[in-house]
Amino acid sequence: MRQAGRILKPYRVLRQRHGSLLTLFKTPELAAEITLMPVDLLGVDAAILFTDLVTPLEALGCELTYAPGPVFARPIRSAADIDGLRNPVPEDDLAYVLEAARLAHDALPPAVPLIGYAGGPFTLATWLVEGGHAKDFPAFRRMIHSNPTLAHRLLNLLSDLIGRFLRAQIEAGAQAVQLFDTSIGLLSPAQFNEFALPYLQRVCRSLAPLNAPVIYFPLAGAQNLSCFGRVGAHVLSLDWRIDLDAAYGLFGDTMPLQGNLDPCALYGSEASITAAAQRILKQGRGRPHIFNLGHGVYPDTPSEKVKLLVDAVHQVVQT
Amino acid sequence: MRQAGRILKPYRVLRQRHGSLLTLFKTPELAAEITLMPVDLLGVDAAILFTDLVTPLEALGCELTYAPGPVFARPIRSAADIDGLRNPVPEDDLAYVLEAARLAHDALPPAVPLIGYAGGPFTLATWLVEGGHAKDFPAFRRMIHSNPTLAHRLLNLLSDLIGRFLRAQIEAGAQAVQLFDTSIGLLSPAQFNEFALPYLQRVCRSLAPLNAPVIYFPLAGAQNLSCFGRVGAHVLSLDWRIDLDAAYGLFGDTMPLQGNLDPCALYGSEASITAAAQRILKQGRGRPHIFNLGHGVYPDTPSEKVKLLVDAVHQVVQT
Repeated sequence: MRQAGRILKPYRVLRQRHGSLLTLFKTPELAAEITLMPVDLLGVDAAILFTDLVTPLEALGCELTYAPGPVFARPIRSAADIDGLRNPVPEDDLAYVLEAARLAHDALPPAVPLIGYAGGPFTLATWLVEGGHAKDFPAFRRMIHSNPTLAHRLLNLLSDLIGRFLRAQIEAGAQAVQLFDTSIGLLSPAQFNEFALPYLQRVCRSLAPLNAPVIYFPLAGAQNLSCFGRVGAHVLSLDWRIDLDAAYGLFGDTMPLQGNLDPCALYGSEASITAAAQRILKQGRGRPHIFNLGHGVYPDTPSEKVKLLVDAVHQVVQT
Repeated sequence: MRQAGRILKPYRVLRQRHGSLLTLFKTPELAAEITLMPVDLLGVDAAILFTDLVTPLEALGCELTYAPGPVFARPIRSAADIDGLRNPVPEDDLAYVLEAARLAHDALPPAVPLIGYAGGPFTLATWLVEGGHAKDFPAFRRMIHSNPTLAHRLLNLLSDLIGRFLRAQIEAGAQAVQLFDTSIGLLSPAQFNEFALPYLQRVCRSLAPLNAPVIYFPLAGAQNLSCFGRVGAHVLSLDWRIDLDAAYGLFGDTMPLQGNLDPCALYGSEASITAAAQRILKQGRGRPHIFNLGHGVYPDTPSEKVKLLVDAVHQVVQT
């Protein structure tokens, strides 16, 4: 999980020294250094690019600050707002992310892959239309009811941007990419099929020629679990809410599944963390499975607990 | 839905005049007046008691303010904190809620039932341990991993309180009660079965002798949909995320279902609101079904739109 970095002391030192999160995201050397930290300090088997969900949205010309979460100066609410968006070229407008990917890729041991990262189209729309975080993101959900044509126009534009951005990340050295859909749980099956699925499929289709695995992470979306197989991703990453056996049951052991450990399990004792890891590894045994947390590490999680988890998993997998 | 009141002008006038939300909750005449408003002004077929999810927690001796959401001065985190809780008697400590129920019941036309209201045990625990609202309520989820015995102790105590509180509401005039479980979507099936189901069952069992229907509203809990039939409630109220046909499929048309309309649908045009209502009514036709929203009305929803919805439903149901 991407946020594994924020529990690490060297990350906190960098964050303190440079003050703003935007500086860390926008300085390729720093972003690359942070990307490597969990590999070096926790021993995880892959690195995930240190960048933010909303990063590509700034390239549309939307002024972005952190206070402390992302805030857009002008939320996108009307056709005129959408007309005013720039048509970004990731190689130019998001060059700093791609440079961070190149630096991280070059610094990683050959056996440790770099995973690129972007938000799903629906999720990015919720942030851009809301203008920041809000409980249940009513602003874009309002748009899908009050002006569905406009909502589709925005989703089209965003899926295009995400596809080009992830493609550029792969060309810059990412060996796999993760599509993070943290708002997707807000949608009913009918809404998912209309306002999310076609755009996710479009992103996945656009990446197909690059032969890099696409990992899809839908947060809190159990009502649409059976639909996630149609997204076109190669791996489905599950949060902690979904029973792994039930998910394998649904996908017939053919879809590689990832994730599933409740990040709050890391607040438990050494014995309970090991037991929780073993339970998931047992469910995944003999099936295509990538061990991971079911969501980001909470910032007050002791890093020793995460290290303990990584070691426990390695011990089981190697025996 | 309880929050239907907050979009109404007379409610806003009261809110403005009395300043604090706590005053509205704690003054039985005001709480009763607000309880009646959606019946009088929107024409809904039942009234729901104007009180808050966290209201009974204050009776445990936990100092509560609104800023603007509920904030507890001292979150409950340790065995000593739990030892320090009062053992409240709803008839004394929550007398103002019961008086509001009596006043509302007496003022309602005989054909309009009063619905009582309380949070589910897990949901109340998330608020009390967190000390206020937080994304994904990590504090109590931490406790279920770090000290499950303590978590069970708290859940025991809370389910007792909720049972006695709802029982007192029924004795004060509520003809049905709603158990609102807004945090329940945070739990995996295994966690739900351990930290929620037995406590919900206990609340429902304690109410059984009173012969008042219990409505269970689990928010965002699709991963546990099949378990909700075992709670012991008489009606299952669904949020907008769940497909009503799928839910009937699961419960075999025997469980009365309620809710399901996306509150954001009320941002749509007159035609789209009517169409959305008709779609749900068609799914519920010939099955035990109570029309309702799938969550609270957003505060900026025009009250005319809600009135339009109520009228559209009445028109279909009466033809």
